[in-house]
Amino acid sequence: MRLSDAETPRLLLDPDRLQRNIDVMAARCAELGVTLRPHLKTPKSVKVAECAVPDKAGAITVSTLREAEAFAEAGYTDILCAAATAPTKLAHADRIQRATKACVILVTDSVALVEAVDAKANELGATFDFLIEIDCGEHRSGVQPVSPELLAIAGALNQSNALSLAGVMTHAGHSYALDDPEQIADLADVERAAAADSANALRAEGHDCRIVSVGSTPTVLFARHLEGVTEARAGVYLFWDLAQYSRNICTLDDIAVTVLATVIGHNRAGRSLVLDSGALALSKDDSSNTFAPDTRYGYLCDAGTLERLEGLSVDKVYQEHGIVPVPDETWFDRLPVGAQVRVMPVHTCMTCAAYDAYDVVRDGEIAESWPRVNGW
Amino acid sequence: MRLSDAETPRLLLDPDRLQRNIDVMAARCAELGVTLRPHLKTPKSVKVAECAVPDKAGAITVSTLREAEAFAEAGYTDILCAAATAPTKLAHADRIQRATKACVILVTDSVALVEAVDAKANELGATFDFLIEIDCGEHRSGVQPVSPELLAIAGALNQSNALSLAGVMTHAGHSYALDDPEQIADLADVERAAAADSANALRAEGHDCRIVSVGSTPTVLFARHLEGVTEARAGVYLFWDLAQYSRNICTLDDIAVTVLATVIGHNRAGRSLVLDSGALALSKDDSSNTFAPDTRYGYLCDAGTLERLEGLSVDKVYQEHGIVPVPDETWFDRLPVGAQVRVMPVHTCMTCAAYDAYDVVRDGEIAESWPRVNGW
Repeated sequence: MRLSDAETPRLLLDPDRLQRNIDVMAARCAELGVTLRPHLKTPKSVKVAECAVPDKAGAITVSTLREAEAFAEAGYTDILCAAATAPTKLAHADRIQRATKACVILVTDSVALVEAVDAKANELGATFDFLIEIDCGEHRSGVQPVSPELLAIAGALNQSNALSLAGVMTHAGHSYALDDPEQIADLADVERAAAADSANALRAEGHDCRIVSVGSTPTVLFARHLEGVTEARAGVYLFWDLAQYSRNICTLDDIAVTVLATVIGHNRAGRSLVLDSGALALSKDDSSNTFAPDTRYGYLCDAGTLERLEGLSVDKVYQEHGIVPVPDETWFDRLPVGAQVRVMPVHTCMTCAAYDAYDVVRDGEIAESWPRVNGW
Repeated sequence: MRLSDAETPRLLLDPDRLQRNIDVMAARCAELGVTLRPHLKTPKSVKVAECAVPDKAGAITVSTLREAEAFAEAGYTDILCAAATAPTKLAHADRIQRATKACVILVTDSVALVEAVDAKANELGATFDFLIEIDCGEHRSGVQPVSPELLAIAGALNQSNALSLAGVMTHAGHSYALDDPEQIADLADVERAAAADSANALRAEGHDCRIVSVGSTPTVLFARHLEGVTEARAGVYLFWDLAQYSRNICTLDDIAVTVLATVIGHNRAGRSLVLDSGALALSKDDSSNTFAPDTRYGYLCDAGTLERLEGLSVDKVYQEHGIVPVPDETWFDRLPVGAQVRVMPVHTCMTCAAYDAYDVVRDGEIAESWPRVNGW
C-alpha cells in the first residue's frame, strides 16, 4: 500500500535506520568487549528481535512475561525479564519455560521475595535463575552495591533448591537526566563499578556470578570501558526518539519510528493545524522537553522525505486530536486538509505501545506489518 | 480466578459501579429531555456498550473507525464517529456500512474536506451522513456558531449526491478546566446555544438538521436545560477517574475501573514502595494534578475493599515501575513485597488504552473478561 492511501494514525518503521542503529550498537559492544543483551521492551516485536539478535541463542531482555512468552515461542532461549518479579508471576514464567527451550531469568532485590518465590517454585515444581538488582544511584530499586543485603539475598537463593543465583544487574536510568557525554561517561563508570564490585563481593563469598549486567543506552554508548562487566542492556537505541535527541545521544536521522498522521482541520483563527493523532497515537510523554522545549509532543516531518517541517511540533494533545501551531497562513496551503505528515515521537517506548504493529516502509510503500506484543 | 492469584498489572472493572453510573446519566438525560449518545471512546468495549445502550438501535459515539467497526459488527446501527474525518478514512467507513446495518455518521468543519470526501465517496459509490462541527469556545476545532463557514459547509454537502447533512455537533471540552458547578452550568449554556442557534440558522436556509448534539460529561451533568438540543454525548461518566474527582464532578466511590498492581520491592532508604505498574500500566497523564496535586499518577486503594490507602499515591512512573512514597516504615509491614493494591486512574481513557480487556470483578473474583477495541 502506498503511504498516501493509508488510513491514519499508524506507526511506521524505517528498516534501514533500524539496521544502522543495530549495527552501531553491536560494534560498540564488541569494542567494549561485552555481550549486547538488547532490551526488547522498546520494540516488543519478534521481527525486530530477529534483526537485532539473529542468533536465537543470543541474549535478550524483556520487561513483561507476555514479551518473554512471545520471544520464547519464536525460539529465543536466553531471556532476562528485567523488572523485579512477584510470586503471582511465577506460574506464567514456569509455563513459558516448560513450553519452550527458554530460560526466563528473573530479578529481585528482596530476601522476603526470594522466600516467597522459593515456596511458590516448590509448589510448581519449577526452577528459576535469578539476578540480584543493584542500585547504582538511580534510587528506584535494587540493593546497595557490596552491601549486607546483597549477600543476604545471595544466601537465600543459595539455600533454595528451586532457585539459582546467576549474577547481578544494575540500571543507570538516571543517565537520562544528563546531556553531557563526559558526565554520562562518569556515570557509566559508577554503574560499571556497582555491578562489577558486587559480583566480586559475591564471588569472594563463594557464589557463582556468571552474569554481570549493566545498561541504559546512554551509558553503554559513552562508557570509557566496561571491565568486570559481562553484558550490556540497551533498548531505545533500536528506534531512538526526541527524548534521546534532546540529550545529544542521537540525531534526528537516527529516529526509525514515526507516526503517520493526517491533517483533519485548519483552525485559521487559532492559526493551527488539527491532526488525527493525539494523546493515544503519540502518548502524553513530554520527557524531551527538559532539554528541548520545542519538541512538545513531537516534531512534524514531511511524510515522504522525513525531513523536518521546520518549526512545526504537536503542541497540544487531546485523546484523538493533535494541535500544531503554524507561524503563518502559508502552511494552510502547504498542508491542506487531508494532507499527511509524520510525527517523530518524544518517547518511542510509550508511543509504540499504542499500536498493534509496525508498518515497515520501503520505497514509500508499506511493505510489511510486524506485530507488537503489548500488555502483560 | 481470585484476585489474589492474579498476575498483574491488570485492569479491573466493578460492574455495580458501572451500572450505577449508567443509571445516573440515563436519568439525567431523561430529565433534560435529550437522547443520551454515550461516547464509547472511554470503554471501547462491546460489553460495556451493551450495558449502557441495551437497545442496539440506540445512539452511540465513537472516536475511531476501529471502534465503529466493532460496534457495528455487534449490531449497533446509529454510530457517530465524532472526530473530523479525512478522505483516506472513507473506504473503511464504507466497508463498515456495507458489511453491517450501521450508519456511520461522519464529522467535518471544512468545505475543502467536503469536496475531497465527495469525490472519494463517488469513487466508492458510497453515501455518508455528516454533522458539521461547531466551536463553542474550546478553540480546538469546528466553525464559529451561525457563521458563513457553517452555511458554506451545509451548502457544499447539499450539492453532493453522496453526502447528506444530518445536523451539528459541538463539544465543550474546556469544561474540564473548571471545578465550579455554576461556571460549568454557564458553559453548558454557551455549548447549548452554539449548537441550537447554528441548527436554527441552517433550518432558516432550508437545510435539514435532525441532530443537534452537545456534550462533555461535566456540561451534561450541570446544564440548567438543553432547549434546542436533541442529544448529549458523554463518555467518562461510565467509569469516572481522578481527573473528574479533582474537579468535584464525581466521588471516589463512583470510580469503576482500577489497576490491580503488585508490590515488587521496598526502597527503605527512599521510604517508598515499588509497584509493577508504571507509565504503561497507568499512563503518564497527570491532568488531575491541577486541582488535586496529591493524586499524582493515581491513588492507592486496598485491593479488596477499594478503600483508599490514606495518603498513598503513585508519585513517579517508569515504563514498568511505579514509585509510592510512604509516610512511615509501618507500610513495609502493611504492604509486604508480593502484596496487591489497586490504583485509581488519573484519566481513565488513557489508562484503559494499555489493556486488551477488562477483568470484571464480582465477589472478589475475576468473573469475566470483556475485550477492548484499541488502535485505529
